Amino acid sequence: MAADQDTGALAAYLRAQATEFLRALRRHRESGPGTSTAPGTGPGTNGTSGPGRPAAAEDDVDAARALRRAARRISGTLHTFQPLLDPDWAEGMRPELAWLSGTLALEHAHASRLERLLQALHRLSGSSALPAPRPLGRASGAATVPTGVPVVRQAPPDRGNLTVGAAKAGALLDRQLTLARTRAHSTALQALGSSRFHAVADKVALLASEVPLRLTGHPGRATAPETAPFDLRPLAAAAHGRLTDAVAALPLVAAGSPYNAQALVHGLSPDPAPHPQDAPWHQVRLLLRLHRYALEALAGGDAGSAGSAEDTVDVRLLAAGEALDRHRDASEAAAAAAQAARTPRIAPATAYALGVLHADQRHEVEAARYAFQHSWRKEPIRLP
Amino acid sequence: MAADQDTGALAAYLRAQATEFLRALRRHRESGPGTSTAPGTGPGTNGTSGPGRPAAAEDDVDAARALRRAARRISGTLHTFQPLLDPDWAEGMRPELAWLSGTLALEHAHASRLERLLQALHRLSGSSALPAPRPLGRASGAATVPTGVPVVRQAPPDRGNLTVGAAKAGALLDRQLTLARTRAHSTALQALGSSRFHAVADKVALLASEVPLRLTGHPGRATAPETAPFDLRPLAAAAHGRLTDAVAALPLVAAGSPYNAQALVHGLSPDPAPHPQDAPWHQVRLLLRLHRYALEALAGGDAGSAGSAEDTVDVRLLAAGEALDRHRDASEAAAAAAQAARTPRIAPATAYALGVLHADQRHEVEAARYAFQHSWRKEPIRLP
Repeated sequence: MAADQDTGALAAYLRAQATEFLRALRRHRESGPGTSTAPGTGPGTNGTSGPGRPAAAEDDVDAARALRRAARRISGTLHTFQPLLDPDWAEGMRPELAWLSGTLALEHAHASRLERLLQALHRLSGSSALPAPRPLGRASGAATVPTGVPVVRQAPPDRGNLTVGAAKAGALLDRQLTLARTRAHSTALQALGSSRFHAVADKVALLASEVPLRLTGHPGRATAPETAPFDLRPLAAAAHGRLTDAVAALPLVAAGSPYNAQALVHGLSPDPAPHPQDAPWHQVRLLLRLHRYALEALAGGDAGSAGSAEDTVDVRLLAAGEALDRHRDASEAAAAAAQAARTPRIAPATAYALGVLHADQRHEVEAARYAFQHSWRKEPIRLP
Repeated sequence: MAADQDTGALAAYLRAQATEFLRALRRHRESGPGTSTAPGTGPGTNGTSGPGRPAAAEDDVDAARALRRAARRISGTLHTFQPLLDPDWAEGMRPELAWLSGTLALEHAHASRLERLLQALHRLSGSSALPAPRPLGRASGAATVPTGVPVVRQAPPDRGNLTVGAAKAGALLDRQLTLARTRAHSTALQALGSSRFHAVADKVALLASEVPLRLTGHPGRATAPETAPFDLRPLAAAAHGRLTDAVAALPLVAAGSPYNAQALVHGLSPDPAPHPQDAPWHQVRLLLRLHRYALEALAGGDAGSAGSAEDTVDVRLLAAGEALDRHRDASEAAAAAAQAARTPRIAPATAYALGVLHADQRHEVEAARYAFQHSWRKEPIRLP
């Protein structure tokens, strides 16, 4: 095992992720390059878009997700294993990848937040049917939503089950989050057409063929032959250490006691940023992700295909990560509901529904913390 | 043990409870007979009230609680052991006791509901200080609150910590629930001065000296000498059976899974009575109480003093009962918040705070169910 864990494994992993990135980018371009069709601007303007295949939009959503996924992994690996890499190259690359994945993630975030809030409104109204989200310009099939969210289509909404307040709250959130999504969509389109993006893509293309390790990047400073194995494990262990330290600082005992009502404390606080308690959990979410990527890199280049990479990671680690994703999503959804309630001149019934929704999402936050500590306690994470 | 469990034990228990009732009534009359001082009508009108001792009001709150307590126990015992008692007497007595304890409980219920909601508003605002409730006419010490709630006095409220919405919601609830309390107070005063009440008190006074058992009540139907032991256990077991049947019908598996989000389903339902799911739990609460009283009666007349009676009952049974009390309180507090949100012309911020409060209390409902199943599962209730 030790023989595998050298810079060769790291280089193979980075090359594999770079290849994934380029493949996703090609799929994205094939499924329909960015047109000016933004979500919410009406039934799909089927004009300038690509091949016009019905499956194009869905392909494109997948492609955008794969693009984000690869960008996150390259960026995270650069962070964890930076001492083994060409420092100038790594330092120049990381902020660009962070910019890219951040920009691409935003549209998805707004869309899934709206989805989550509308679902919650229906659940709170005793209706199990998923609400039909506002049409996003995909009616003609070929209209593209380059970085969209996979929307689960179900039966039309049973609006009769909603109170006036819940219906109005849903409409308000729909309006606000669709607007935010539209803006994020335009920003993503601009980003994908920018020279900044092309520079990143060129760098990733280079990475797919050659990884600039510190030894090769700085031949003058090379102290060992290029093929000498360098142990990745201390750096992976350091990433793991940062994670366990951050987890140790979390209030896990409180989180493990169900219905502790912690997440909603300050729920009515006049402080506009009332939930600093969420930040350490968000931080652990990022550190857990870095730890996972480090494990993938240790496993080496055979982690190139998405499936096999995740197979090498403990299922319970994934469960903990999913709990923290849910924590983040619920935290941001709660903030969106609180934000919507500050809209001037809304009806009291709308505000009431938004209050219930806010509290509901804060309890989701608490539930996610409970789920996290449960997964975490169940199986301590072992570094292979 | 079997020798104790005869009608003699039943009679002793009923006599002891009747004595408690009369003692509480005397304390209530001594600590200050009903004046027209209702809560919220201003600083205590120290006119016509009793001895004017500073501790009078507190005494009276205790006395009112003891009165309700004894009335519930007599009524419950009459229900469970009715076949052993004079049927005409028992049938005539029970509705009167139910009327009395219901009437006396109402003021307490409104007061503690307000207390609970204001506390929750402060907790949700991140302020741990208990809000100072509206002065209830006790400022002069001697002003009486015959059936009031024991109010825990703490530091003055930190209103600066409340948002406008939370403060307005608190003021609205204060207004509405204090009005309801004032009405309940007047009703209780009228009840305690009514001939109907005096008739009940007379009957209880008779009970304190002689319990009308079926044998003595209907000498013609007597089939055994008056002193023959009659086993109470089958009737107590039947009460226990009704309890376990009702518990078995509860969704305990769901309740045992924390954060199941069941209690808030229908939280935004247009149905004005959106929580029929609470009813079986309320029913179990009543059956659990009857079971406890039956255990007390089996233990016999030595259960006369409150402390020793409760000592004979499993602590975990008490925990289960407390969880169900909390369930009922939170359910009704949530309904009061929802009701207040329907007040016309309230500000959106007020409605929002009431929505958060409603959801918070519904989660308290869920937490209470979780606590109940926990106590219940921990220790199956054994009939001694």
